[in-house]
Amino acid sequence: MKKIKCAVLGATGVVGQNFLKLLSGHPYFELTAICASDARTGKKLAEIKEHVKGGIPAEFKEMTFDQNEVKALVDKGVEIAFSGLPTEIATDIEKEAAAKGIKVFSNASSWRMDEHVPILIPEVNYPHLELVKTQQKSSKGFIVTNANCTTTGLTMALLPIIPFGIKKLVVASYQAISGAGYPGVPALDINGNVIPYIKNEEPKMVAETRKICGAFSNNAIHPTDWEVFAHCVRVPTIIGHLISVHAELDKPADYESVLAGIKNYKTPAAVAGLPTTPEKPVIYLADVDRPQPRYDVNLGTPKRTRGMAVAIGRLEVNKNIIRFVTISNNLVRGAAGGSVLNAELAYRQNML
Amino acid sequence: MKKIKCAVLGATGVVGQNFLKLLSGHPYFELTAICASDARTGKKLAEIKEHVKGGIPAEFKEMTFDQNEVKALVDKGVEIAFSGLPTEIATDIEKEAAAKGIKVFSNASSWRMDEHVPILIPEVNYPHLELVKTQQKSSKGFIVTNANCTTTGLTMALLPIIPFGIKKLVVASYQAISGAGYPGVPALDINGNVIPYIKNEEPKMVAETRKICGAFSNNAIHPTDWEVFAHCVRVPTIIGHLISVHAELDKPADYESVLAGIKNYKTPAAVAGLPTTPEKPVIYLADVDRPQPRYDVNLGTPKRTRGMAVAIGRLEVNKNIIRFVTISNNLVRGAAGGSVLNAELAYRQNML
Amino acid sequence: MKKIKCAVLGATGVVGQNFLKLLSGHPYFELTAICASDARTGKKLAEIKEHVKGGIPAEFKEMTFDQNEVKALVDKGVEIAFSGLPTEIATDIEKEAAAKGIKVFSNASSWRMDEHVPILIPEVNYPHLELVKTQQKSSKGFIVTNANCTTTGLTMALLPIIPFGIKKLVVASYQAISGAGYPGVPALDINGNVIPYIKNEEPKMVAETRKICGAFSNNAIHPTDWEVFAHCVRVPTIIGHLISVHAELDKPADYESVLAGIKNYKTPAAVAGLPTTPEKPVIYLADVDRPQPRYDVNLGTPKRTRGMAVAIGRLEVNKNIIRFVTISNNLVRGAAGGSVLNAELAYRQNML
Amino acid sequence: MKKIKCAVLGATGVVGQNFLKLLSGHPYFELTAICASDARTGKKLAEIKEHVKGGIPAEFKEMTFDQNEVKALVDKGVEIAFSGLPTEIATDIEKEAAAKGIKVFSNASSWRMDEHVPILIPEVNYPHLELVKTQQKSSKGFIVTNANCTTTGLTMALLPIIPFGIKKLVVASYQAISGAGYPGVPALDINGNVIPYIKNEEPKMVAETRKICGAFSNNAIHPTDWEVFAHCVRVPTIIGHLISVHAELDKPADYESVLAGIKNYKTPAAVAGLPTTPEKPVIYLADVDRPQPRYDVNLGTPKRTRGMAVAIGRLEVNKNIIRFVTISNNLVRGAAGGSVLNAELAYRQNML
Repeated sequence: MKKIKCAVLGATGVVGQNFLKLLSGHPYFELTAICASDARTGKKLAEIKEHVKGGIPAEFKEMTFDQNEVKALVDKGVEIAFSGLPTEIATDIEKEAAAKGIKVFSNASSWRMDEHVPILIPEVNYPHLELVKTQQKSSKGFIVTNANCTTTGLTMALLPIIPFGIKKLVVASYQAISGAGYPGVPALDINGNVIPYIKNEEPKMVAETRKICGAFSNNAIHPTDWEVFAHCVRVPTIIGHLISVHAELDKPADYESVLAGIKNYKTPAAVAGLPTTPEKPVIYLADVDRPQPRYDVNLGTPKRTRGMAVAIGRLEVNKNIIRFVTISNNLVRGAAGGSVLNAELAYRQNML
Repeated sequence: MKKIKCAVLGATGVVGQNFLKLLSGHPYFELTAICASDARTGKKLAEIKEHVKGGIPAEFKEMTFDQNEVKALVDKGVEIAFSGLPTEIATDIEKEAAAKGIKVFSNASSWRMDEHVPILIPEVNYPHLELVKTQQKSSKGFIVTNANCTTTGLTMALLPIIPFGIKKLVVASYQAISGAGYPGVPALDINGNVIPYIKNEEPKMVAETRKICGAFSNNAIHPTDWEVFAHCVRVPTIIGHLISVHAELDKPADYESVLAGIKNYKTPAAVAGLPTTPEKPVIYLADVDRPQPRYDVNLGTPKRTRGMAVAIGRLEVNKNIIRFVTISNNLVRGAAGGSVLNAELAYRQNML
Repeated sequence: MKKIKCAVLGATGVVGQNFLKLLSGHPYFELTAICASDARTGKKLAEIKEHVKGGIPAEFKEMTFDQNEVKALVDKGVEIAFSGLPTEIATDIEKEAAAKGIKVFSNASSWRMDEHVPILIPEVNYPHLELVKTQQKSSKGFIVTNANCTTTGLTMALLPIIPFGIKKLVVASYQAISGAGYPGVPALDINGNVIPYIKNEEPKMVAETRKICGAFSNNAIHPTDWEVFAHCVRVPTIIGHLISVHAELDKPADYESVLAGIKNYKTPAAVAGLPTTPEKPVIYLADVDRPQPRYDVNLGTPKRTRGMAVAIGRLEVNKNIIRFVTISNNLVRGAAGGSVLNAELAYRQNML
Repeated sequence: MKKIKCAVLGATGVVGQNFLKLLSGHPYFELTAICASDARTGKKLAEIKEHVKGGIPAEFKEMTFDQNEVKALVDKGVEIAFSGLPTEIATDIEKEAAAKGIKVFSNASSWRMDEHVPILIPEVNYPHLELVKTQQKSSKGFIVTNANCTTTGLTMALLPIIPFGIKKLVVASYQAISGAGYPGVPALDINGNVIPYIKNEEPKMVAETRKICGAFSNNAIHPTDWEVFAHCVRVPTIIGHLISVHAELDKPADYESVLAGIKNYKTPAAVAGLPTTPEKPVIYLADVDRPQPRYDVNLGTPKRTRGMAVAIGRLEVNKNIIRFVTISNNLVRGAAGGSVLNAELAYRQNML
């Protein structure tokens, strides 16, 4: 079977490098172009500063950078583009790429709240992918986004809770420095410190959560009416956004049912078995002091899906209140891995 | 005026050393005995490992340790004892000391929930000090405790919010490693990590908050019926427990009124002007990314009260919901400084 | 081929758990007993706190602990014991085990400087293994030690330098907290700090380096007469001891020869091809800012040898002075992996 | 007495803010202008992000920024300028300022190795200040630099060692992140890590040390011929550059003499008693595990000189080899405080 030609936009960044890692040996996609800012054009991938453990995949190291521009993609016959671009420049490039017929799977926030663009987290809302058809009037191209990294972890963890009827969420996050990209957070700000503010993050948590968990009908997404309150806080960890979750339900639940819901959660058939779909997307950790960033951000089997499963711990249920702590890998599940999975879903649905 | 002879129990620990620092040059109290575990008996204070910046006060360095026992206190004519003892051993020693006529001001949790023992935070509940009279039937001694360090910060920050009518609290903490004492948290556990569990901490947050904020009448404390939900999390900071606070009120409030309430908060006359009472116990920080542990744990004027004021930032008011972030110095306001202030209040009220 | 029955002494510790990880699926050795302090006896391995990423190997989780005693080993027919015991208790147990015929491969420092005990680092001094024959007069048992973790990294990095004629070494280390075991270094001591002293470490660096690099003849080790000066410093990293090395030679060398010596270093045939022997034990990193603990502590191919190769960077040669920076994995190469490799060498030489 | 009008160039940076702190209430100098990059012009000092504990001095908060240009200084009648400029832009501005008659006391490295510019550390080489007269042919202005922050700490610590006759130095540093300014080191690079390379730092250590410790005669500085070898390494600490020092002497020394030399070191009369001169510039710490960044970077009495004294610990003397560990405050002694002291020396010598 012929693989689909793909590109990574913003390939030098923290998210970009995670795209490269995940595309190494990918069964559907073939990396054809790597794009970066002007300054990199013509240089080899081998020359960049590495931000992933294990380094840049050896098979790609001799590739040379193109500029972050649609022209390069078109010239190389790229059909899909994974975007790790900073928001400021993603807005125009992604729009132009879609207009030129390229399918864009983006980690940037630029288009997330656009009414024609889904924020896709397959296990949570795979039907939303249909929305892209409303984009395809003048071109076969489209934009699909993954969610903000913290929102991704939250909505994944809510998967087994949603059936109990959510009404209100009060969350506080403990977000790793890698979430800010590179160079990102100055060490002088965060060493031995905690910063209780991350620009634009809290409104994203509110709006994206509602949109992701909304119903899809009549070619439109109808956000939920959940009340969502979030404090987003940077802490000095490297990878893994941990969240304290307090959920209030429409009606009481009991501990055993909720725990069983978490443990027995089954991935929807539409999503199960894709190369980057973890067998169990939500894993319950019984130890009283877990999950923790240093130990629990690489969950997921089979091996290709490491970092795609989220962990839940410390479940408490008290009448209509469910409380727990959750963690997700902000670079894999919350960024590059999320978009790769989105593309795999589109592939399965013959939308590429 | 003659100073009152005091002792520090558990003087080698992190809290104990903060007691020493605060008692240096104290206008009411004279340090007469320092007590530690057997192994230290007879050694000089100068020999211990320092856990406070600036070190052990020079004036005390030649003092020698007595054992952590009531006998030593009685022999030296100590009238009040500041206890930085670990809970396990505090239970018996503090009870015996009170029985022998000594006034105990304790940072240990052993007696906090006893019906005759107040958890005193003067600005919040100075009338509760009266409760000790119910302890003084067979001895002039008594026990007064300060609250758990995180609870202290929370209730202090709620001071200007309480008048708006609290119904429910959902909080998540970001607690410094010094809160666990010494040796406390192993570096191997917390370096570049976050631990979403601190033994016994969350139940304390719930029960102590309700008791502290309860009414005092008929010689008894009547805890509030607030719903309180807490996640207590250790983060790799050194000093300062930060808390994300979500408070739900009986009725709507507006931003300007709440902010004015915080900014104009006045210390009750019964408490104002004590040596360790900060002029402003609650300080609002307007910068969007504050408070932060590295910068905001030493608030308080005049100088003797540094670390006694708590900071609030990021205030949001939305109908009946008030949200903010607060920080307090867990070693000063949340531990040694709290008990010293409690003793000062007792001194002013002629209870020593 | 029948596997040799082995035990891990001190199996709950940081080094002990690394032994378990390395023994999972080992081609020569079969884990038959896990031993720990009294308190653990009869408990399952699954119950302990994990200190290795990826956790305890699933295949061992149902094993139950025996006490750290020779009797348990004898009863279970154990032939070799890997010791991750603390020095204080290793001294007697290891001696007794050897007297009872067990071959002990130890990470403890108790017997390292004994004249009949080799400090074995196969690539550096495989002939020293012969020394154990001087121990085997009354029992087939013996003790072989691996070196102190920092010394291991240093001597491994010196492998390609030794041929140039070393006369003097001046080194300064940057040692990770995991080197102190668990609970080890209190977070309150090392968070945002550096501690320029590690008990007993510097004398070990001097004496062990000289013994390891000494000649073996007439059934005795003859330490080198190198001058060795070391400052050993704890830094807030998790795994990986980095060392600044300044070596002075008998005579001048040139950069190209030294670099070629490093790059072309070949593992001695006696050691090559063992399950835990890395193909290249010393790897040169050309980037100017490497090696670094976060990125370079898991070098080694094939996969079973990850963490067994050391990295060298920043080579400078100036007349008779060679300078570089090196890093090694203190838990694998500098501890558990070193002893496993030692046992493999003994296996190949039919000494088990 | 009329104070001398001074300016701070680069006032928003980490070093710039330390200049502001040290100039608050200064007996000789009056802050007349604060300069920053274009973007700040006209804004108030109160608006900048704080990088010093205790914040920007209140008395300066209403001052508005001028541009980092000589014109502003001339217009405001500034006589001396303290420069916290980045090297790239310091080169031209400092030269022009001196040409226009302004006395520049600079923390930038641009002019340090110029044959007419002294690298002044008063206790070490106060006679070098005379060198500026060779600059004053066409203008009364001149440039005096302080040393690189690590070099400052090293040469200060060598003060009591120099009389024993230094021949060779082998040093390895443990440098705090604040040494890189703001934003400086990305947290993603240094969290839980160590980086064994700091651009340009090692050559500075070699060349500046030799120049600073060189003799001054015939209107020229004659660098020492010491062999100096340095590895400069970034570690995750906030303030304080620690250095492992190995010094080889012309002839043997003994421990007692060297220790006495350190303890009895007397500040030269030419330097003693200036507002920023610490009573004891070199302080010996007897505890085996000191100095440490978290505890020992604010040494110096009287209060205005806090951070100006360096600490030495772990002294060893072995024949002609002296070894110790030292620490200095890289922002005060190694930067802003150094230049303020230089200006005070010039003031005393009637050179302003």
